[in-house]
Formats: sequence, structure tokens, C-alpha cells
Amino acid sequence: MRVGGKPWRTIWVENEAGDVGVIDQTVLPHRFITRRIETAPDMAAAIRDMVVRGAPLIGASAAYGMALAMRSDPSDDALDDAAKTLGAARPTAVNLHWAIDRLVKLLHPLPPSARRQAAYDEALAIADEDVGINEAIGRHGFELIAAKAKEKPGKPVNILTHCNAGWLATVDWGTATAPIYKAHEAGIPLHVWVEETRPRNQGASLTAWELSQHGVPMSLIADNAGGHVMQHGLVDLVIVGTDRTTASGDVANKIGTYLKALAARDNGVPFYVALPSPTIDFTLDNGVRDIPIEERNPREVTHIQGQDADGRLVEVNLAPEGVRARNYAFDVTPARLVSGLITERGVAKASSDGLAGLFPERTIPA
Amino acid sequence: MRVGGKPWRTIWVENEAGDVGVIDQTVLPHRFITRRIETAPDMAAAIRDMVVRGAPLIGASAAYGMALAMRSDPSDDALDDAAKTLGAARPTAVNLHWAIDRLVKLLHPLPPSARRQAAYDEALAIADEDVGINEAIGRHGFELIAAKAKEKPGKPVNILTHCNAGWLATVDWGTATAPIYKAHEAGIPLHVWVEETRPRNQGASLTAWELSQHGVPMSLIADNAGGHVMQHGLVDLVIVGTDRTTASGDVANKIGTYLKALAARDNGVPFYVALPSPTIDFTLDNGVRDIPIEERNPREVTHIQGQDADGRLVEVNLAPEGVRARNYAFDVTPARLVSGLITERGVAKASSDGLAGLFPERTIPA
Repeated sequence: MRVGGKPWRTIWVENEAGDVGVIDQTVLPHRFITRRIETAPDMAAAIRDMVVRGAPLIGASAAYGMALAMRSDPSDDALDDAAKTLGAARPTAVNLHWAIDRLVKLLHPLPPSARRQAAYDEALAIADEDVGINEAIGRHGFELIAAKAKEKPGKPVNILTHCNAGWLATVDWGTATAPIYKAHEAGIPLHVWVEETRPRNQGASLTAWELSQHGVPMSLIADNAGGHVMQHGLVDLVIVGTDRTTASGDVANKIGTYLKALAARDNGVPFYVALPSPTIDFTLDNGVRDIPIEERNPREVTHIQGQDADGRLVEVNLAPEGVRARNYAFDVTPARLVSGLITERGVAKASSDGLAGLFPERTIPA
Repeated sequence: MRVGGKPWRTIWVENEAGDVGVIDQTVLPHRFITRRIETAPDMAAAIRDMVVRGAPLIGASAAYGMALAMRSDPSDDALDDAAKTLGAARPTAVNLHWAIDRLVKLLHPLPPSARRQAAYDEALAIADEDVGINEAIGRHGFELIAAKAKEKPGKPVNILTHCNAGWLATVDWGTATAPIYKAHEAGIPLHVWVEETRPRNQGASLTAWELSQHGVPMSLIADNAGGHVMQHGLVDLVIVGTDRTTASGDVANKIGTYLKALAARDNGVPFYVALPSPTIDFTLDNGVRDIPIEERNPREVTHIQGQDADGRLVEVNLAPEGVRARNYAFDVTPARLVSGLITERGVAKASSDGLAGLFPERTIPA
């Protein structure tokens, strides 16, 4: 999407030599800095240090990391080394391992001399596939926004979102944001409530930044305010992303999502979840019971990074010294609270039948 | 309650001369500093700058401000001046004006020579009345916690609270915290989930501080995590405070309270609100419709104060430069989501009948 009026992806090949460019997401929203990445270990570091983040972007980054490895040494040893180095960058990231495996399977049978070009081609294919999926999510979600727009001609459609399921987490378009960007491009007047999404603050630092850079009208609110705006008729629909969806339509997403789903139901506001279908886990049925919830470092709750009056990025402590904190990273929204799942194949009901209808080939017989 | 093992109130007379001591709440939880206040204008400044905050504490502070004025000059002019200066410190604070009016009405008829002592006596009476009300709330709320403790012998009762309705907001005990302190004093094992309560962060900076200083086991969580812990059976009851309650039992409290009430209902967790009865507004019936919700400076959403690695208190920007933000300070929890109202007279059902039963003399006939 656009930054300063110019279209960007989150990852690209910089030059004929094959250096890879990324946006440094650790200093957003205060600084827009791109980094040139020249080696696989540097890409592993970028993934580990969250210079790049978001499952789809991590996958594409790992693929380009493999390509960088093949550029400097296309031997079997180098291939294995790169897979190991990149795979260790964020051990629990499913997309990371999926992308590395895909490259390894493609490259191993090839003669070393063919590996460099094949790796760059495959990395681009992975990036383009992500863009294609998100663009399709955008088209299907667009219909939901367009329908709301018809109900209130001339008035902006108010959409609430949580965390960052935006283009910064993907290669382009984003998941929850794809319908928003599509509607904005089509000239539908919009206003997006962006929740700051504590503790990591990705709503304020990433979603608010990318929407406003692209020119989509938005207001930042505390996560606590999401219920109030729904209660007062200021939200027409909610669209969030997800990290994992069960076969029954339960949705794991950034902590706090469940609270917004409850408020949406209490106020008759449609609550949609946008997702690429690979994140549906057809082996799970009961999300609250079966999806393990990562607990992250409590320091993310007690400390936060921001920019001080002198323009320096500093981390400050928000809590009493030595206080005990817990940092649950995700929660699960039961399918009963979800109005629909926006996938690249269309909008499914959040139920076994709904998902089986769109993805019959992936459904596991009972 | 206790700080560093020693009992404290939030306001006290320091010495024979009548100087007034307060805790500087602007630097909590990073520093525990008391301030000596010697004049009415200094007390007005302390109220304005939120060195003291919380409706009951503001009332007591204003009363002591009047006493300080009478100490230096007990004339009619000085009395009127002090009332004006203190009243302008936070113009919308109801308790501020209530306390000043009470002192003015008491002092005006008295000869100037009697005013100093009468003012100090009345300020102490106001402080003691607040302590008495909160202590009674504590006794009634204690029964609810004790009943839960009986259901799970030997295991801690898990209580979730939002924002700071603690002793720091009052003269002692607090409102939502009074039952917690009573249960802790009685030896009931407890664990309190303290929500950080963005944007002003009073959960992390005040509630976490006061509970841990007093020795009550607690864990700090992001506001977003409140639903998740209830969903997983980790909360036995919720107790929050309120700024204003309608005759029908609708409750206005710090933004985000409504979301926790929804999660409590969805998970069968009792949701209680602790309140001194003067905060019941018997003229209002429909809280969502009729209680005006203050919008505060958006800078509270985009910026936050914390302590940097060098121990300095600094304010940092969390959001993109110039981003539009909205800062709704309160939300309204409808009575249908409230299990009970813990008042100084007992626990009422959150309904017109429930409140009329406990406060028949204040009920307005339909």
C-alpha cells in the first residue's frame, strides 16, 4: 500500500545483485526506515529481532533468506545451513518453517548452478501468492462494507479493528485491512476505529500508521474504548485478523479480540474475521479448550517503547518495580460470536458446515 | 493501608501547626513521596495537578485546604477567596464543591476566631466519614469474598479489578479494594488480577502499587486479557468502583468496565460494583442514554509517562506523529450485567427496587 504517496510492499528485491529490502518495523511509527539485507544470517536476525513480523511476511522473508544464501553459496551444505539458521530465528512461527521447507524441497534436487535463480523465483512466488490471497480476501470483504455503505448513503462506514492484521504483517494488502483498502480505493467513505492493542501496541504503532499513510480516515482509541463506541452506534462492523481458526470456526487472535466480539454481539454489530485459509486448523474443534495460548515476557506489560521529547526511542517502565505481571498473547473468540469468516474463497459461516462448504478438500471426516 | 509495613492515610495533619501531608500520586508507582501543604493555593494546585485525585480524596483535600486558609486568615474575605481558589482547581469534581460548600456553610456563621479549629475539625470529620463509608463497604463486600472462599477451601479467591478504586482514591480502604483488604486482613487467601487500565494506567501505577505495598498477592495484566482469564476459570468474582450510578443500577466507571461486565456474564462470573451511596444519582434512569461521557485530552492515548533506564520520569509518544485519537474516559455498564451494588448499607440488586430498598429516603417517586 502507499507510504508518502508511493506504493510499497513490505519486502522486495532491491537491485540486480539480489539484495533484499524490508521496512524496519521496530522503529515504526516514529521512523520509516528501510533496511538492505545481504545474507541469510542477516535475514535470520531481522526475523528474530522483529524487523519483519506477521506470519505471511515472515514466510516470505525466510524464502528470500534462502535465496540470499544460494546467491553466496549454492552448495548442499550452505542450503542446509541456511535452513537451520533461518528456522531457528523464531522457532514457533509456522509460516517460517513452511516457507523454508518449500524452498529446501525445491532446491535440493536442482544442480547448484540452478539454485540461485530458482530460489529468487520461488521467494517471489511466495510473496505474490500472499498478495493474491489477501487481495481476494479484500474483494470478498469489500462486499460486506459496500452493503453497509448502501444502508447509510453519504455517511462513512465505521469499522473497528484490533491489533495489526494490516499490510505490514503481510507482503501487501493485509488480511483484516484488505477489505478496508479495497473499499477506500472504490471511493466508499470510511472511518476506522484503531484500537491501540496493548501490550505490544501494534494498533497504534502499525495499523494507525499504515492506514493514515494510505489516506484512510481513522481514529486511535484505547482498547478499553471499543465497547463504548459500539454501545453508542459508532461502529457498523468489526473486522479483525486471526492467527488460527478451528474447523468449528473458533478464532484465536490477539488478546482482547474476544472482548470486542462480546461487545459486538451485545450491540448487534457484525463481527467478521479475515483469514487466509492456510491458518484454518482442521484438526481442532474446540478453540477455547484446544488452542494453546502463548504467554510472552511480562516485561511487555510492564514496559513500553516510545519516542521522547528529544526524538529518542526509549523504553519506560509503567509499573511498580518488581511487580508480578502475566502476558497472555492471544485469546479465543468462540464461533457463536463470529458473524462470518472472510477467506480468499468467500465469506463462510463460522461453523463446521460453513468451513466445510468452502474447503471440502481439507475437511477431516468425523 | 500499609506502605512499607506502616499504616497510612492519603491525607493527614502533619504537625501541631496544622500543615497538611499528602502522598504525591503523580510520581507513583516509581516514587513514594509525601508533600507538605501549607496554604490553600498550594492545596488548590495539588488538586489541579492531580497530586491528590479520586473523588473522596479530592473532597477531603478541599476541606483541609479551607482549614489552611482559616489558619492564615480567618476573615470573611479569606474564606470567600479560599472557596473560589479551591473550587476552580477541578471545576467538574462534584466532591470538591460539596466539601467546600459544607465548610463555607459551617464557617460563615462563626466568629473568625473560632473558624480555624472548626475547619480542621470538619475536615477531619469529612475524612473520617469517608473512611467509615469505605470500611462499611468493605464489611459487606467481605461477605461475598468469604462465601467464595468457602466454595474452594484452601485455594485463593481470584478477584479481578479495573482502574483504581483503591485507598489512594479515597482517604483509606478504597471502595472496590475495601472488601479485598478486609478479606486479606481476615486471612482469606486471595489473588487479584489488576488490569492496567489504559490510557491513564491507574491500575498499573496505583492499584498494583497499593495492593503489593499492603501485601495482597496480585498479577498485573493488560486490559485486553480480562476476558481470557475469565474464560479459563481464573476469576471468581469481579469488583470495580464507579463514578456515578443511576436509580436503575446502571453504572458509569472507567472506560473498559463494560467489556469486563460482558465477559463476566459470558462466563458466569459475578460482577460487583462497590460504591459510596452519595454517588448514586436518583435523578437518572437510563445510564447509557443519560450519563454524559467525558472526552479527555487525546494526548493521554498517544503519550504515556514512565521511568526510563536511568530512573528519570519521561513521557513518550506511542503513536504516529499527528495521528487523530479519541479519549472516552468512562463507559456505562447496564444494570442487567451487574450482579450487585456493594454500598455502605449492604449489597443491593442493581435495579430500581434494589436501590429503593436500601435507600428509601432518597428514592424519587415516579
